[in-house]
Amino acid sequence: MSDLRIAVLGVGIMGADHVERLSSRIAGARVAVVNDFLTEKAESVAAGIPGCRAVGDPLDAIADPDVDAVVLATPGPTHDKQLLACLDHRKPVLCEKPLTTDVESSLEVVKWETELGVRLIQVGFMRRFDDEYMQLKALMDADEFGRPLMLHCVHRNPAVPPSFDSSMVVKDSLVHEVDVARFLFDEEITSIQIIKPATNPGAPQGIQDPQIAIMRTSSGKHVDVELFVTTGVAYEVRTELVGEKGSALIGLDVGLIRKQSGRWGGQITPGFRERFGRAYDTEFQRWVNAVHRGQTTGDYTDGPVAWDGYAAAAVCAAGVESLQSGRPVDVSMVDRVSIPRA
Amino acid sequence: MSDLRIAVLGVGIMGADHVERLSSRIAGARVAVVNDFLTEKAESVAAGIPGCRAVGDPLDAIADPDVDAVVLATPGPTHDKQLLACLDHRKPVLCEKPLTTDVESSLEVVKWETELGVRLIQVGFMRRFDDEYMQLKALMDADEFGRPLMLHCVHRNPAVPPSFDSSMVVKDSLVHEVDVARFLFDEEITSIQIIKPATNPGAPQGIQDPQIAIMRTSSGKHVDVELFVTTGVAYEVRTELVGEKGSALIGLDVGLIRKQSGRWGGQITPGFRERFGRAYDTEFQRWVNAVHRGQTTGDYTDGPVAWDGYAAAAVCAAGVESLQSGRPVDVSMVDRVSIPRA
Amino acid sequence: MSDLRIAVLGVGIMGADHVERLSSRIAGARVAVVNDFLTEKAESVAAGIPGCRAVGDPLDAIADPDVDAVVLATPGPTHDKQLLACLDHRKPVLCEKPLTTDVESSLEVVKWETELGVRLIQVGFMRRFDDEYMQLKALMDADEFGRPLMLHCVHRNPAVPPSFDSSMVVKDSLVHEVDVARFLFDEEITSIQIIKPATNPGAPQGIQDPQIAIMRTSSGKHVDVELFVTTGVAYEVRTELVGEKGSALIGLDVGLIRKQSGRWGGQITPGFRERFGRAYDTEFQRWVNAVHRGQTTGDYTDGPVAWDGYAAAAVCAAGVESLQSGRPVDVSMVDRVSIPRA
Amino acid sequence: MSDLRIAVLGVGIMGADHVERLSSRIAGARVAVVNDFLTEKAESVAAGIPGCRAVGDPLDAIADPDVDAVVLATPGPTHDKQLLACLDHRKPVLCEKPLTTDVESSLEVVKWETELGVRLIQVGFMRRFDDEYMQLKALMDADEFGRPLMLHCVHRNPAVPPSFDSSMVVKDSLVHEVDVARFLFDEEITSIQIIKPATNPGAPQGIQDPQIAIMRTSSGKHVDVELFVTTGVAYEVRTELVGEKGSALIGLDVGLIRKQSGRWGGQITPGFRERFGRAYDTEFQRWVNAVHRGQTTGDYTDGPVAWDGYAAAAVCAAGVESLQSGRPVDVSMVDRVSIPRA
Repeated sequence: MSDLRIAVLGVGIMGADHVERLSSRIAGARVAVVNDFLTEKAESVAAGIPGCRAVGDPLDAIADPDVDAVVLATPGPTHDKQLLACLDHRKPVLCEKPLTTDVESSLEVVKWETELGVRLIQVGFMRRFDDEYMQLKALMDADEFGRPLMLHCVHRNPAVPPSFDSSMVVKDSLVHEVDVARFLFDEEITSIQIIKPATNPGAPQGIQDPQIAIMRTSSGKHVDVELFVTTGVAYEVRTELVGEKGSALIGLDVGLIRKQSGRWGGQITPGFRERFGRAYDTEFQRWVNAVHRGQTTGDYTDGPVAWDGYAAAAVCAAGVESLQSGRPVDVSMVDRVSIPRA
Repeated sequence: MSDLRIAVLGVGIMGADHVERLSSRIAGARVAVVNDFLTEKAESVAAGIPGCRAVGDPLDAIADPDVDAVVLATPGPTHDKQLLACLDHRKPVLCEKPLTTDVESSLEVVKWETELGVRLIQVGFMRRFDDEYMQLKALMDADEFGRPLMLHCVHRNPAVPPSFDSSMVVKDSLVHEVDVARFLFDEEITSIQIIKPATNPGAPQGIQDPQIAIMRTSSGKHVDVELFVTTGVAYEVRTELVGEKGSALIGLDVGLIRKQSGRWGGQITPGFRERFGRAYDTEFQRWVNAVHRGQTTGDYTDGPVAWDGYAAAAVCAAGVESLQSGRPVDVSMVDRVSIPRA
Repeated sequence: MSDLRIAVLGVGIMGADHVERLSSRIAGARVAVVNDFLTEKAESVAAGIPGCRAVGDPLDAIADPDVDAVVLATPGPTHDKQLLACLDHRKPVLCEKPLTTDVESSLEVVKWETELGVRLIQVGFMRRFDDEYMQLKALMDADEFGRPLMLHCVHRNPAVPPSFDSSMVVKDSLVHEVDVARFLFDEEITSIQIIKPATNPGAPQGIQDPQIAIMRTSSGKHVDVELFVTTGVAYEVRTELVGEKGSALIGLDVGLIRKQSGRWGGQITPGFRERFGRAYDTEFQRWVNAVHRGQTTGDYTDGPVAWDGYAAAAVCAAGVESLQSGRPVDVSMVDRVSIPRA
Repeated sequence: MSDLRIAVLGVGIMGADHVERLSSRIAGARVAVVNDFLTEKAESVAAGIPGCRAVGDPLDAIADPDVDAVVLATPGPTHDKQLLACLDHRKPVLCEKPLTTDVESSLEVVKWETELGVRLIQVGFMRRFDDEYMQLKALMDADEFGRPLMLHCVHRNPAVPPSFDSSMVVKDSLVHEVDVARFLFDEEITSIQIIKPATNPGAPQGIQDPQIAIMRTSSGKHVDVELFVTTGVAYEVRTELVGEKGSALIGLDVGLIRKQSGRWGGQITPGFRERFGRAYDTEFQRWVNAVHRGQTTGDYTDGPVAWDGYAAAAVCAAGVESLQSGRPVDVSMVDRVSIPRA
């Protein structure tokens, strides 16, 4: 199975991140084409990726026969046209939110894809892929909390750019909680109210911050969201689900906490694979990268070396001796032998 | 940069995991050759990986000109000879612990590699790549806790296979803590004592479980380890560093907890990249996989689809209206339009 | 200073608790008179307290010259008349909530007391005396969180009696959060809205449960409260304060958690007095009680006895020997000598 | 039942605390006599307590016919003689640790009391009265963790007085852990070893700090203790019990945490009595004290006043109206009427 050839459109902060992600951490894909309205930026990004080239027009990039799939990280107002081009060329596309910047054009895109009858468009609501949200959803699907009743959300940013205005709090921040509520409840939202408390004295002039959003779903479930984008503290995204038989909290920086049957707490990592699975991934990725670099550096390692294996063996041998004798045992080791780090 | 061609030697539980890891989650590498002393197993694993073949003799696999690097997941007693072969052929190798099963052969491997003058061997102490251990090490390197003084470790398994004996507690479990202590303190361990408390009534006959290991480093730092491999509870690996200016605990399933200046607690995830960086990786990997499958399934998505983008737009538009009017606003949406999930 | 002679009016669950509290845990007071509309109940309670008698009419109890102060634990509708009687007789009174059952009579009581010009009435909003609420208030007073902006409250009961109705959720549960908000913000509440989500299928027919209360204070601060009285889980009372410079959470069963400057966490108990002050109180109260009982039992202790002091001395002596020698030391003790527990 | 008349011997920091405790927070007792080797100190303390006088000789205080029971907070070396005097006079005594300063005299006290056949002496190991230790013991007694196997303890002080030496770490700090181990395991300790790690650079010259104590009980249970008295951080006293079926941690400033069956966490406070029982005690004690002061101040309250009851009634009435109408309701209140705080 050969690697997918991806075109990344828009290589600003987000897009450049995705280029790096696809190049260094994602198996089965490579960035073949990049595009940006700043041509030089696209060219400079392309120069850093073997086998990648910059293309000047986003629609050309989409149409390019050497492109199997598209990542859209362009500004929202251009999504409309680019998505329709992807559909025309039957190119799968991962589109950063928003789908488009207004309801009408969003609906047009939906209808066009439905007519084609092929699922080609995925929207970048990345929280659905976050471990904690996935755990919460899995527990809900397993009926751990009974019928879901309410969702309390908190969305806090330490600061926002000076260009931020009150409606962007809704469109750029609340939009994630809207998707979270729809994802977790599997229902549409039918009404919404924005409450405007006295504003934070530290917020830029003219922004309504904080805001409280109150939403209701088709079956009457309640969702409230604190939106507060100038806290000065840190990035806090929290969700509490309250169900008929218990509740769960994520986003407190301590993992998912459940409350059921009079007990609060979490799961203990059940085994070494759950505990260290990611460490193995990191170990392997860093080792693979080090081996790639090795031709140049003469150092094919990025982690514990043979000496560390020897030292561990020496200590464990002394440990086994102590286990038998019951007495402290001195560890016997030669002086360190080593190849200087490249 | 073309993908590294890896030979995975040993495709038991651990090795098969590594094959899957290299094939589906690691960028820049692919499994070209697998080997196992059970020939059929190797063949069945190879059959599942495009472009991969089984090789009957591990030394042939190492020597194979189509192999750029080697992963050793074979039984410990065979490591010795296989590592020397890797050195002979100048093949970088990631060797699951132990390096070898005795101190003498470990030292021989170290010396041989040192003579070559090329760092080719990395040992699979994966904890050094675990987020929490890396955080702890980084905080220590940043002198957050002053001079390190002590390490309290806990290593608990819910159960062990019937073949487990008392010395394996030292060689297979304690060995990880030995490496953790050496990694965090950057010093060699100079003495060790194993204390044998009254045994767990639930432990298999003849095993000394729990055991307490007391170690001392070259500068006199203290390390203690509770080893308890039949707890029946879960997998618990915990490390507490005590320094001159504070302490830190990892492995309590709530992230790294620091104690400094009269306060306990952790860091709040500072930004969306730290909070959702992994979610993006997962999103992209799953999307890439879905696009690969799309030719067959006609569904190039694995996540939120265009409709979800439309629904979010509709709710946010109503939200902005409520922000302006101060009143609850009903969300206006068409009936769901959708392509059936493949 | 002789003990205050208290009349407790109403000895149902709450009142009986208060009788026990005043008799066994509160210094400087004793229960001199009890009253209940169930005469036998009052008499049976009085019989258990040395020097206490039952009085048939609550107004007589208030007027009684042997009564220095009054505790009101009678049903709400009787408070009105009893409070006015306390004012008439200039008797200090601690009145369980509600002050009275309607706004008009509450105002009348306030005015009457104001005319007298003596503060005689205290209302039993006990949360103001809870450690966590007191800590939170103290941190706010010390300007730890900057200007307060919002309060998110949760009030969950596992179950309510069958007689509970929707408006009691407001009058009996929300009333505590109303006082908490007024206490913490030091402002009056100027508007309130009750939102009615889809009800819990497990709630008794006809009750609106859960309810969401949205309140606004005179300066525009926002308060929201989840009221959910049939959770089946446990008793959960939680308050989160969000301020200009940070936030704090109480009621998560883990003490007060602050979020400031990118860190979450709590205070480590600073010294032994904070850590064990309450243990000393408990130790002394139980010892005093044991000495009182001693005349009868011949056992004047309720805790560690002389033997425990001897055993500790023996172990510590061996410890000091090991400190000097560096070797394990066996503890030398005689066989246990003991007086049989009474 | 009249109040016990207590003699407090030694009114240094600890003893003065106990005088205050007995006078203001403990029901059923009062301080009748105080004594100190600094006569003026005793007289000044006595002057502050109604009905209390200073007595110059501790043995006279013990013998005093107006003294029912004794609290010993004198220096350790005087305990010996004072305890024997208490036994002679059949006076119940609560003796701060140590019982006496050496093993021989401790044994003599034990034997003398045993001969009398009356339990008169209680030793001040206050941890047995701490909520968390009591909870842990109760859970162990209820067989929640199966057979207990190990205890890991941490005893950290931010700093110690300049006079502190290495053996005081054992006799003054470790002694508490010795009692905790004996209390929880209900077994004697049979051997002890003190390990001396490299010392904290910040510790005063000549003190061995930290120290590690390793103890073993009669049935082979293991206890280890980190003793570290110059951390500069805070007061940390932690105990982890490891049993056959689970473990529990206390002293992390977050309540008792259990680990059982793959889950970690704690109990949610089950009801309002557990949650707010102490708040009620505090409320009542402070109210009783305020009423005592009222004759002088004209203010018989220390907490929410009648106005707070009126305000709560006004908000709840508006809340009930909103519950019925479904709309936001403005709260209707008169301007604040109040008696100036005394």
